[in-house]
Amino acid sequence: MNIHGQPHRSIEADHATQSARIIDQTFLPHQVEWRELRTLEDAAEAIQVMRVRGAPLIGATAAFGLFFALRENATDAALELAYHVLHSTRPTAINLRWALDRVKRVVMPLGAEERAAAAWDEALAICEDDVRTNHVIGQHGLELFRAIQAKKADPSAPLNVMTHCNAGWLATVDWGTAISPIYQAHDAGMKVHVWVSETRPRGQGASLTAFELKEHGVPYTLIVDNNAGHLLQRGLVDVVIVGTDRVTAHGDVANKIGTYLKALAAKAHDVPFYVATPVSTIDWTIEDGIRDIPIEQRSAKEVTHMPGLNERGLREEVLITPAGTQARNDGFDVTPGALVTALVTEHGVFPANAKALQQLQALV
Amino acid sequence: MNIHGQPHRSIEADHATQSARIIDQTFLPHQVEWRELRTLEDAAEAIQVMRVRGAPLIGATAAFGLFFALRENATDAALELAYHVLHSTRPTAINLRWALDRVKRVVMPLGAEERAAAAWDEALAICEDDVRTNHVIGQHGLELFRAIQAKKADPSAPLNVMTHCNAGWLATVDWGTAISPIYQAHDAGMKVHVWVSETRPRGQGASLTAFELKEHGVPYTLIVDNNAGHLLQRGLVDVVIVGTDRVTAHGDVANKIGTYLKALAAKAHDVPFYVATPVSTIDWTIEDGIRDIPIEQRSAKEVTHMPGLNERGLREEVLITPAGTQARNDGFDVTPGALVTALVTEHGVFPANAKALQQLQALV
Repeated sequence: MNIHGQPHRSIEADHATQSARIIDQTFLPHQVEWRELRTLEDAAEAIQVMRVRGAPLIGATAAFGLFFALRENATDAALELAYHVLHSTRPTAINLRWALDRVKRVVMPLGAEERAAAAWDEALAICEDDVRTNHVIGQHGLELFRAIQAKKADPSAPLNVMTHCNAGWLATVDWGTAISPIYQAHDAGMKVHVWVSETRPRGQGASLTAFELKEHGVPYTLIVDNNAGHLLQRGLVDVVIVGTDRVTAHGDVANKIGTYLKALAAKAHDVPFYVATPVSTIDWTIEDGIRDIPIEQRSAKEVTHMPGLNERGLREEVLITPAGTQARNDGFDVTPGALVTALVTEHGVFPANAKALQQLQALV
Repeated sequence: MNIHGQPHRSIEADHATQSARIIDQTFLPHQVEWRELRTLEDAAEAIQVMRVRGAPLIGATAAFGLFFALRENATDAALELAYHVLHSTRPTAINLRWALDRVKRVVMPLGAEERAAAAWDEALAICEDDVRTNHVIGQHGLELFRAIQAKKADPSAPLNVMTHCNAGWLATVDWGTAISPIYQAHDAGMKVHVWVSETRPRGQGASLTAFELKEHGVPYTLIVDNNAGHLLQRGLVDVVIVGTDRVTAHGDVANKIGTYLKALAAKAHDVPFYVATPVSTIDWTIEDGIRDIPIEQRSAKEVTHMPGLNERGLREEVLITPAGTQARNDGFDVTPGALVTALVTEHGVFPANAKALQQLQALV
């Protein structure tokens, strides 16, 4: 999507030099710094220190990393080493392993002299597939938005969409998942306004989603997470849409902490609550999300400290609690499928229950 | 309650010098700075720049302010001027006006030579009344806590209480409202653990409530507001208790933004949701809180900036969003009485509905 009026992807291939360019997301939202990746080490470091984040973008970056390694040395041993180096940067990221396996599967049968070229093509294909998937998710979401807009008392008023965390283009190669329909609505000339929930503790809404929407020119208003219930109660939200980290075969949804409170409030006020997700995020092996999805415990420091830009324009972290405060920091929560109006996937819109998802599984 | 093992009130009278000592809350939670108030100007400034906050504490401070003024000049004109100066520091604070009126009513019939002494006594009485009211609220709350504790699967496990914002002793003269039963449970040897919700945007939970509990030795864990739904879903919360800024005659409750989301989540998991309040906070003139309680719109800067202590131990404010981000900042939300298990008042525990509150009104 756009930055400063120019279309961009979160990772861009340079065909002349066969390198990749990423936005260094550790500088966002205060600064847009592009960074060139040319080696295995560049790619591994970018993933490890979270210059790139979001499952699809991590996968794409790792695929380029494997290409960089094979360009230097295309032996089986070098391939295995590079696979290991990249996989260990974020060992729990399922999409990272998936992308590495996809490239490995393509290059393994080939002779050493063909491997690098094939890896380059596969890295590009992984990017294109992600962009296509997200675009289709956005198309399905846009249809839902249009139907909701048509039913508004004043259909010429903007559609008020609430989101949580960052399920935008910066977490994918382009478009994003939950934000994809918002971009497509905006680009199609539909009046849309986004309530961006800041998403404590890491503030992905306040920094990344706000940055994305601002740069692409989509009207938005930032709120603290606490404000969501009030806005829903006052009829100021027409639809809620979020991304997800994992969906069960019964439609329970794990997503960034705080999603569940929004789902409860949306239900209380009969506002549709959609979850945008590629089918690959559905874990068909588990059913009950509350029982079966492990919740990552994250550092207390994310709760007790806050990074930002000080008055001199320098990045600084401030302590916002009494020194030595003990904090608990669950990274995710689980929203039962019963609170989810539907899942918006690249194969269409499916109710978040076991029966509907069986039909989806049969399609893919 | 205790600071560093010593019992304190948020405002303390010095009988020898007839001055008042306050904790300068603008330095909390990082520093405990006491500040002496000796003049009308001292008191007015302390209220205006929020060295003192919380309705009962503002009222008590204003009462001392009127005494300081009358000590200098006890004429009717001086009284009127002091009343005006103090009232204009926070014109919407109902309790401030109430305290000023209470002192004025006492001193007006008196001769100029008796007024200062009477004002001093009345300021002390306002403090004592507040402490007594909060203590009784705490006693009623403690009974509720004991009943909930007795029903726990393991009654020897700590009672897990969740609160929001700061309804503790720092907002009153002592004890607080919602936190009063927690202190009384702890002091009585009951095992109690508090989930302190940080309360964005101003972070009164992360700073003030965490500070209070830490200093008094009550076990607590800080969470981001987003974490409340997850903890309730996982059975980690036995009871929620909050304070309030205004209650309607039908039991709707206005409180710090984010209270409503906690009430919805508590309801979804059948966890009792109590509101601790002196009867004086009930506004008998209004019924429907969503219709009748105006919601204060506060500065966007509270959302986009965060104050704290930097790495060099200095107080600093950091920008946490893209520059120029637009934000909406509703100060309060309204929780319908139907979501409130009961109001805990100094006259006992009353269901949050019109009928029960009529009975309460008849008592007072």
